[in-house]
Amino acid sequence: MTAPLPDTPHIEMWFDFASPYSYLAIERVDALAQAAGVQVDLRPFLLGPIFQAQGWNDTPFRLFPGKGAYMMRDIARLAEKYGVVYNRPRLFPRMSVLPARIALLGQDEPWGRDFCVAVFRANFQHDLDIQDEDVVHTLLTDLSLDAESLIARGKSEAAKEALRRQVDRARDLGIFGAPTLFVDGEMFWGNDRLEDALDWTRRAEAASPWPAARHA
Amino acid sequence: MTAPLPDTPHIEMWFDFASPYSYLAIERVDALAQAAGVQVDLRPFLLGPIFQAQGWNDTPFRLFPGKGAYMMRDIARLAEKYGVVYNRPRLFPRMSVLPARIALLGQDEPWGRDFCVAVFRANFQHDLDIQDEDVVHTLLTDLSLDAESLIARGKSEAAKEALRRQVDRARDLGIFGAPTLFVDGEMFWGNDRLEDALDWTRRAEAASPWPAARHA
Repeated sequence: MTAPLPDTPHIEMWFDFASPYSYLAIERVDALAQAAGVQVDLRPFLLGPIFQAQGWNDTPFRLFPGKGAYMMRDIARLAEKYGVVYNRPRLFPRMSVLPARIALLGQDEPWGRDFCVAVFRANFQHDLDIQDEDVVHTLLTDLSLDAESLIARGKSEAAKEALRRQVDRARDLGIFGAPTLFVDGEMFWGNDRLEDALDWTRRAEAASPWPAARHA
Repeated sequence: MTAPLPDTPHIEMWFDFASPYSYLAIERVDALAQAAGVQVDLRPFLLGPIFQAQGWNDTPFRLFPGKGAYMMRDIARLAEKYGVVYNRPRLFPRMSVLPARIALLGQDEPWGRDFCVAVFRANFQHDLDIQDEDVVHTLLTDLSLDAESLIARGKSEAAKEALRRQVDRARDLGIFGAPTLFVDGEMFWGNDRLEDALDWTRRAEAASPWPAARHA
């Protein structure tokens, strides 16, 4: 047996299409990952069941109004800083079950990535109802995909079960918000930890990004 | 009347001595503020009454255990990245009423700033009970301050009332966590927004730090 060649480092990025901080991260991640030589695996899931499991029956934006108002301001301010187009959706948070089921079908394929970006932009740039079948149909068609077939598959029992399992995995991983990134089992929560997560991929190599040794 | 000369920009930094993210920010702020030509006004307050007002009877670290465990890891990781000494306190969060009352007495004086740093380090470097009068006495004495007198003043009704007013002001400002920074009425929450807050002081000048115009 020969030793395997060092692989391109991977990070997993877990997100919900309703999450504005996930949107900011998606818009930024490709350029940053390319510069870092890292592959990003997109992992769509649903925050709703995760929030419910910690006793929240609504989005934290509404449960904690002062914090929610601040976060809306923070998101607009960050979008401006990053140069990312952002229009606050009239409806927030939007239902994201159907696009999540379809995105999960293609999460490791190029079309899946393109679809994820399209769904996020539909929500946070074009203020469209991403749960609406016609909207999803248009997004898929615009990507030259077979919209009828993918929507039918997304509505299948298999796709529903797959998303339930994805949410279970998120819960098992200890995810409590989005976006959440994983690098070799190390968790980073939030768009504002994206750079740190990418830096972390270098910890396995000789040149550690940070001075001290990795924590146990 | 002559026009006033442009002042050094100020930012206000609100914090609780029990807050580890506030500790990280305090350890970083002086060098960053000096580089930015900004004066930082320290504003000690108490998070407890703020949390209670939003329905939390405990620290969010314990109310949301998964998130709490992540934050503890995040804090250690950030301390390593910044090169800041950090030892997780055996007791968390610590009561911080007495040092907050004393810090408030000197919040705009050089000794007050030194005392704040000393209290934070006692908690997050030396794992000391910062609510203990003997510990506070030693911290003040080490700064060549009149510990007896300051502790007596900190325990006075006037100091209690002043801290209550400070917490009221925090609530009126919409503060929901710590550290919270203010620049010309613009709120920034979290150690990870410290750089953004300092950048914001340049928005009043011709060279805006970010491309677009300030939001209304």
